[in-house]
Amino acid sequence: MKRISLLGATGSIGLQTIDVIAGHPDQFELVAMSFGRNVDEGKKIINKFLPKFVAVQDKEICEQLALEYSSQDVHFSFGEQALIDAATYEGVEIVVNAVVGSVGLLPTLKAIENKKTIALANKETLVTAGHLVTEHAKKYGVDLLPVDSEHSAIFQCLQGENVRNIERLIITASGGSFRDKKRAELTEVTVEQALNHPNWSMGAKITIDSATMMNKGLEVIEAHWLFNMPYENIDVLLHKESIIHSLVEFRDRSVMAQLGTPDMRVPIQYALSYPDRFPLPQGKSLQLWELGKLHFEKADFERYRCLQFAFDSGKIGGTMPTVLNAANEEAVSAFLEGKIKFLQIEDFIERAMANHRVIGQPSLDIIQEVDKDTRKYVQSFIS
Amino acid sequence: MKRISLLGATGSIGLQTIDVIAGHPDQFELVAMSFGRNVDEGKKIINKFLPKFVAVQDKEICEQLALEYSSQDVHFSFGEQALIDAATYEGVEIVVNAVVGSVGLLPTLKAIENKKTIALANKETLVTAGHLVTEHAKKYGVDLLPVDSEHSAIFQCLQGENVRNIERLIITASGGSFRDKKRAELTEVTVEQALNHPNWSMGAKITIDSATMMNKGLEVIEAHWLFNMPYENIDVLLHKESIIHSLVEFRDRSVMAQLGTPDMRVPIQYALSYPDRFPLPQGKSLQLWELGKLHFEKADFERYRCLQFAFDSGKIGGTMPTVLNAANEEAVSAFLEGKIKFLQIEDFIERAMANHRVIGQPSLDIIQEVDKDTRKYVQSFIS
Repeated sequence: MKRISLLGATGSIGLQTIDVIAGHPDQFELVAMSFGRNVDEGKKIINKFLPKFVAVQDKEICEQLALEYSSQDVHFSFGEQALIDAATYEGVEIVVNAVVGSVGLLPTLKAIENKKTIALANKETLVTAGHLVTEHAKKYGVDLLPVDSEHSAIFQCLQGENVRNIERLIITASGGSFRDKKRAELTEVTVEQALNHPNWSMGAKITIDSATMMNKGLEVIEAHWLFNMPYENIDVLLHKESIIHSLVEFRDRSVMAQLGTPDMRVPIQYALSYPDRFPLPQGKSLQLWELGKLHFEKADFERYRCLQFAFDSGKIGGTMPTVLNAANEEAVSAFLEGKIKFLQIEDFIERAMANHRVIGQPSLDIIQEVDKDTRKYVQSFIS
Repeated sequence: MKRISLLGATGSIGLQTIDVIAGHPDQFELVAMSFGRNVDEGKKIINKFLPKFVAVQDKEICEQLALEYSSQDVHFSFGEQALIDAATYEGVEIVVNAVVGSVGLLPTLKAIENKKTIALANKETLVTAGHLVTEHAKKYGVDLLPVDSEHSAIFQCLQGENVRNIERLIITASGGSFRDKKRAELTEVTVEQALNHPNWSMGAKITIDSATMMNKGLEVIEAHWLFNMPYENIDVLLHKESIIHSLVEFRDRSVMAQLGTPDMRVPIQYALSYPDRFPLPQGKSLQLWELGKLHFEKADFERYRCLQFAFDSGKIGGTMPTVLNAANEEAVSAFLEGKIKFLQIEDFIERAMANHRVIGQPSLDIIQEVDKDTRKYVQSFIS
């Protein structure tokens, strides 16, 4: 029985994690969880699993729930510290970090200090503070298990392999909702169009990041940290069917790949069952002959400027990926609110990066300060 | 330094094994070898590596070479016993069995008794006597390492995995030289047409076996024994580019695959370097975007009758796969000599199987007897 803390339980990854946990009641136990403001979904989960600890965003929601569940053995708390408490809750073995944005960083570091295994769906954690998180994990002897389908694919390809034999990582990209449009056609696209991802059903922020390919850029940085791989040895490959989730080339020219129908429950369950695999009867078996063809294209860094920004910021290092990520979060959020146009997301990231003076090997304080400053800087163009 | 004995050194796999050994003089040493009648190629290898022991087919060739190399420390021998002596040569750690046909069986069993690791390119060994070879390997604690690209792919997919989590093996098939022809178009095809394989440069027998898909059928039986997998859990998938060399589906719906440009040196070197991987600088890095597309089709068991025969014989078990293999070897050899037509290969195999009364759990003697009887039976239709 693995005792689990799930951060971001009512988000897209959170709910699919719940589905996986529910599928194996003899293997997994939900001990602690957090969610933001989606009280209806949150209560469904609480009713089903009766976790010992629930962290929410606001004081009001916390007090309301505490009253409602006063006869049950469920403890409620709120705010940033509550998220950390959920991540470090006693007896928890594995923390699934499925919150969106850089708010996931501190709970991850604290969970590591408490020797929890980390199943990481929050890519901003590694993007903004990859050096801190990986050093921390090494220091405390903690496994960082990827939940993203691409990194899970790479992680699965590396089982039983010696990392020194890796030649390159090949991260596949669907191309997002606008993959069939030219750059010139993107000037007037709407939020609704951008949210219509062809293969994956995901949260709003990550769906926009797929359309700009910033999602792939963040994944490149994440892969750099997770697998200790120089950027020169990471490739992005357009593969519109999202069937091959990523590949690893070894120095003997052998290429390993992980495939499957697009279903986030597979990588989520793998992180929870690792190093074992459990059945996933709700999942659909892959039949390649039904698909007939798989397509591959070179990733165009001029068409997808965010991909170039991500590689650039990763190679520059220091605080630059923090700027990339914070500027992107602010710009995407402004786009979702209808305040800016789609291509302005790229422009704002470019401006924020150009404006930033890099600090090497930044501490957590500096990262948080740069994150805040970048957001302010980007917001200053918007309203 | 791994000390190697190479059986079938001048064949297609043999020469590519030589290429691999030559690429890593600090890792691999050719200690013993065998070849048939290709004296020119054989001498090139002897001159380059000066192995301690060389087995040849005929007494005349043996005597001629012994005279020629009398001043060198190379010992020559001939005939069936010489092949066994090469397979069991003192100090050899790994035997690459790259001979063609069921003549590879006895040397494999003897090498296992002498605790040599077996790198198996001779699929007839497992097809005709899978139960004996695998029991033997288990008894003597010896690894059977696949050299066939498909089985090597599966073997690579299984590294770091628990075999009880396997759902099915998916063996890919190029479809061979006649994959774009309908069955009705095969009545008058020539030997030259059959030998023109679209993807792989291989020996004559295996190229014909690819055209009939018997090669894939033999591989299914081989996979059954190598990976202890019921036939119900082995699929064949048409994939004309031969880029995905095979796949494994696990019970969590995750599918692992091994890919690469078609190059037999990759699986050969993997068997020799296993569990490590060495560089293969002569190999070509796979760029999927250059290919653009990969194609998949369901395998049609009526179009490719040999595939059906192979599954049938495997499920029947006992001596039936020996009959399948012996009938196929004789029929292919008759086709290559221009004595029968292409589709008669299938007819003869069908007749031989229909004519055979199965013996369960056959001993080596019975297998050899059935093998001989089947060949006689098939020959009786030919001349």
